[in-house]
Amino acid sequence: MMLKRLAISIAASAAFCTAALADPLPSWEDGDIKARIVAFVDDVTDPASQDYVPPEARIAVFDNDGTLWGEQPVYFQLIFAFDEVARRAGDDPSILTSDTLKAAAAGDYQAALAGGNTALAEIVAASHAGLSVEAFQNNVRAWLDTARHPGTGLRYDHMTYQPMTELLRYLRDEGFATYIVSGGGVHFLRVFAERAYGIVPEQVIGTSLASSYHVEDGQPVIVKDPQVFFVDDKEGKPVAIDRIIGRRPILAAGNSDGDFQMLEYTTAGHGARLGLLVHHTDATREAAYDREGHVGVLKRGLDEGPGRGWLIVDMAKDWSRIYTEGK
Amino acid sequence: MMLKRLAISIAASAAFCTAALADPLPSWEDGDIKARIVAFVDDVTDPASQDYVPPEARIAVFDNDGTLWGEQPVYFQLIFAFDEVARRAGDDPSILTSDTLKAAAAGDYQAALAGGNTALAEIVAASHAGLSVEAFQNNVRAWLDTARHPGTGLRYDHMTYQPMTELLRYLRDEGFATYIVSGGGVHFLRVFAERAYGIVPEQVIGTSLASSYHVEDGQPVIVKDPQVFFVDDKEGKPVAIDRIIGRRPILAAGNSDGDFQMLEYTTAGHGARLGLLVHHTDATREAAYDREGHVGVLKRGLDEGPGRGWLIVDMAKDWSRIYTEGK
Repeated sequence: MMLKRLAISIAASAAFCTAALADPLPSWEDGDIKARIVAFVDDVTDPASQDYVPPEARIAVFDNDGTLWGEQPVYFQLIFAFDEVARRAGDDPSILTSDTLKAAAAGDYQAALAGGNTALAEIVAASHAGLSVEAFQNNVRAWLDTARHPGTGLRYDHMTYQPMTELLRYLRDEGFATYIVSGGGVHFLRVFAERAYGIVPEQVIGTSLASSYHVEDGQPVIVKDPQVFFVDDKEGKPVAIDRIIGRRPILAAGNSDGDFQMLEYTTAGHGARLGLLVHHTDATREAAYDREGHVGVLKRGLDEGPGRGWLIVDMAKDWSRIYTEGK
Repeated sequence: MMLKRLAISIAASAAFCTAALADPLPSWEDGDIKARIVAFVDDVTDPASQDYVPPEARIAVFDNDGTLWGEQPVYFQLIFAFDEVARRAGDDPSILTSDTLKAAAAGDYQAALAGGNTALAEIVAASHAGLSVEAFQNNVRAWLDTARHPGTGLRYDHMTYQPMTELLRYLRDEGFATYIVSGGGVHFLRVFAERAYGIVPEQVIGTSLASSYHVEDGQPVIVKDPQVFFVDDKEGKPVAIDRIIGRRPILAAGNSDGDFQMLEYTTAGHGARLGLLVHHTDATREAAYDREGHVGVLKRGLDEGPGRGWLIVDMAKDWSRIYTEGK
């Protein structure tokens, strides 16, 4: 009896040690970046360290497009918007009241977006507004289930970056709260954030349309309206973090200059802080882009980031795997 | 050895049972209201119940003014605003650029608020804007430390309702997340919410001014601007809950018709739900008011609440104690 108990105890300890020593970031290549991430986490979670941070203040914020999942050839939510205009027009062609919407329904990105932000706002309104949050999220769910990326053939929510999902899990295991702070839509993101990243709805911050409260047949419903309420990008990111979280993060990760202020705000705080930029360098496995283009422009971050101590992740070099599914 | 271990085991079990059986709501009088609150919590936390709710979906939302602390003779944050205009004018009298602000600095509520919402916006801007969030919160902290309520002589943050702080703790002990969803200012509330209620910054939702991001001498700072960004009252409450929490609560507590939509939205959900209205009936220990006045008007809630199954808490009858401190 005692021997059996001892044996169980030893087995349990061994399992514990194996778990504790297992590599929490298996898809990150061994090297400076991975070592610095782990050193930071060890530092802020060690009660004996002068940089120790109590669990309630271990706030980590992550951009989504280009940081947690792909964003080429265009933001995936924009592909949803175009597909959704086409789908709605299939039910009711009379919604195509402008050349912009006709081009969107035809999948002609260039013509549809020729009108700049005005055209974009029209497409967003025609695809995201005029229905309840619940109905909208059902549409997003149905789209994710059927749509496939033109380049990879994968579901969009399988094009999440495996190394980043490992980082999210690692941080949560170490007592961090992991937030998405994205220029993407908050209702859109919540449809897949929990399944794909383990991020619960109340830890998703994003851009939003105005919404309004109605009671229909005795049932309250929240309806998405066409006007933009808040754009969670650039300066908007630290503003939203302050307004919604109310604590300054100790870790921020992004991939474009839209994340610059979030990293700046985070890493200027007292004590140990970590800023991380995902640099898209892998033309073979994903896409190589930075200083130019219409999506995910990273210029100031490359120029100033290293001097500010931010980690610049070289996807080609630092990641042994890109997507959660597929290659 | 075995006997000693058995004794320890029995002692531990006894302690556990005592803790489990201790009254979680000692300042609530035994009766229907208390019994229904406890029955609801037992129901949604019992895995064998058909109304069982997993911990991550146990969201409870609380109004603040008149629900968690007092709100008479006027909202405490308005008293702060008047005191703050006077304090700032003491440093620089030239800020008193209008009759409204002169009246506010003199503590003449009637004259200052004669201009309605325009006057109120002017007073809010002169007391809440034009400084960093950090500096603002230091001002609120200093005010809480020195200001005393004209009626009770208590610190304002000691005029929290003891029965409600017990309810908050009880719910958290049972796996709920407890949120404030208040018409009051989010930055104002966060100064005392954690100490007074155990509610962490990221679980405080409130009204907010616009804010902007600046870098001053290399240090990022978030500045409160004079424009109102969002009013978290009436229809705004469910809208903010959806936008920020992203899940429908299962329990909502308020005290005025400004909370009606929040309770309506919460209790219309599927499964067991609890709506609770604090009815200010205690002229002796606090104040008796409901259908009329300029603060905390409760009319529709009294008319429709009982028919909707909401609990109407009679402060005089249901609470053995009012404030956390003092009487």
